[in-house]
Amino acid sequence: MTGRPTSAFGHVAILGLGQMGGSFALAARERGLGQFFTGFSRNPETRAEAVRRGLVDEAPDRPELCVRGAGLVYLATPVRSIEPLLRQVRDHLHPEALVTDTGSTKVEIVKGVETLGLSARFVGGHPMCGTERAGLEAADVTLFAGAIYVLTPTASTPEPLLARARQMVTALGSRVLELSPELHDRTVAAISHLPHILAHALLLLAGQRREAGEPVFELAAGSFRSGTRVAGSNPRMWSDIFASNRREVLRALDEAVALLDRLRAEIAADDLTALEATLEEARILQERFRR
Amino acid sequence: MTGRPTSAFGHVAILGLGQMGGSFALAARERGLGQFFTGFSRNPETRAEAVRRGLVDEAPDRPELCVRGAGLVYLATPVRSIEPLLRQVRDHLHPEALVTDTGSTKVEIVKGVETLGLSARFVGGHPMCGTERAGLEAADVTLFAGAIYVLTPTASTPEPLLARARQMVTALGSRVLELSPELHDRTVAAISHLPHILAHALLLLAGQRREAGEPVFELAAGSFRSGTRVAGSNPRMWSDIFASNRREVLRALDEAVALLDRLRAEIAADDLTALEATLEEARILQERFRR
Repeated sequence: MTGRPTSAFGHVAILGLGQMGGSFALAARERGLGQFFTGFSRNPETRAEAVRRGLVDEAPDRPELCVRGAGLVYLATPVRSIEPLLRQVRDHLHPEALVTDTGSTKVEIVKGVETLGLSARFVGGHPMCGTERAGLEAADVTLFAGAIYVLTPTASTPEPLLARARQMVTALGSRVLELSPELHDRTVAAISHLPHILAHALLLLAGQRREAGEPVFELAAGSFRSGTRVAGSNPRMWSDIFASNRREVLRALDEAVALLDRLRAEIAADDLTALEATLEEARILQERFRR
Repeated sequence: MTGRPTSAFGHVAILGLGQMGGSFALAARERGLGQFFTGFSRNPETRAEAVRRGLVDEAPDRPELCVRGAGLVYLATPVRSIEPLLRQVRDHLHPEALVTDTGSTKVEIVKGVETLGLSARFVGGHPMCGTERAGLEAADVTLFAGAIYVLTPTASTPEPLLARARQMVTALGSRVLELSPELHDRTVAAISHLPHILAHALLLLAGQRREAGEPVFELAAGSFRSGTRVAGSNPRMWSDIFASNRREVLRALDEAVALLDRLRAEIAADDLTALEATLEEARILQERFRR
């Protein structure tokens, strides 16, 4: 990082200009993470819009051109596009660049990075602040503020590179949580991927009931609204996430079904003491979570 | 209703002074539904508080005294306490009183009403506007405004009585939806009781993972928060609701597990086309719901 202030990356390249990439551009500029910003999107209109709105200074039409000379390469594209993109830009990366991503799953990506021989330049990341909104129009300079931001270094991650990744996260106003890719994927399967699957199941069930003539949408109130909120997310993005974390998602699903079986048995047995105790157990967990 | 204006009930008696009963007192006063309000709660402090705050004029310590002479008897107590309460006050009801309730399930209550010989004075009700907050302190004069308010008349319900129940609902600012008790219970199992059960399962799963050392609460973000919001509700109240709608709750649970199996199979097979189509189906349903 010759001649650069330690808190800045000089040229910042952002691949993917959706909610995450766009919010990162806004926040990184505001926090002085770079002096020059380039951005890439497959969509020419998005590239033009990003330049027009001043999110990036230039938006070349090829990712290789976007990353050239960048001290920070920020990949904010769908989870399964990250490895192909890295393959495409690999030979154009600055030798001292920090490369990081925002993919919702990490094991598959980190494996891809190893195969590509990029482990010495890559730190996996997952900012825990996405919403069901999508696209550049959902970019928000405050998105990262106060959020947990997971970094998933491995044994091959150089300590100075990890230190720069931590600096980046802190500069965004997020809090660093370092986890192994495996523990990250196992945990997000339970607390993020599973809630999305349950939301989808609730809607599909409502759809079946509606077909059968039940006034589901007329009666649906707060609990249905909260329980299904996240199902508005992008189907392509989420099918990729589920697929790229298949093993852990299936495990979380099986555990959830086992718990539903337990609740089912307590209801079926009219065992109100057991049922109330189970609901109370959940309520106490929720209180702890909110604290 | 001799001498009373058709839009008012004169003396209104409210049994149960929690969020629902308290909100009803506030809204009914504001909307001129009665001139004199009595309230009953098993808790002496709640009775005193309701009088102190002016929600009711008097709060006798026995439900029989509360309902005496009332033109409208509004039962807003836990679902399984409604039939016993009705049994207790039956011989003290004004012969022309409209008796209605706010129980979250209706088949069991309407059966109890028939057994008690009260079908000519009772219209089952379910305002679709409760929240996870509880108690008199959660009373809110705007709770009913704009909400769907289900009435569940049966073949034994006299038309003039039903007309008065409709008037009451409209005066509260809610919209009447008339359903059979059976269709009501079947539908709320899917769009209200099931979301509560899923919320509890999500929390129990998080609890198990936390015991196993996973950073669940650190990583849990928006989707977990929405998916578990309603699990803060009162465990006693909800175990009663599940139990009093057992058959339909089990049916909804089984349908949900079947849909989870479908999603599981699509993820396990890495069938991204099918998976994406399923998620898109759910997304479209959500759009329709929001409209």
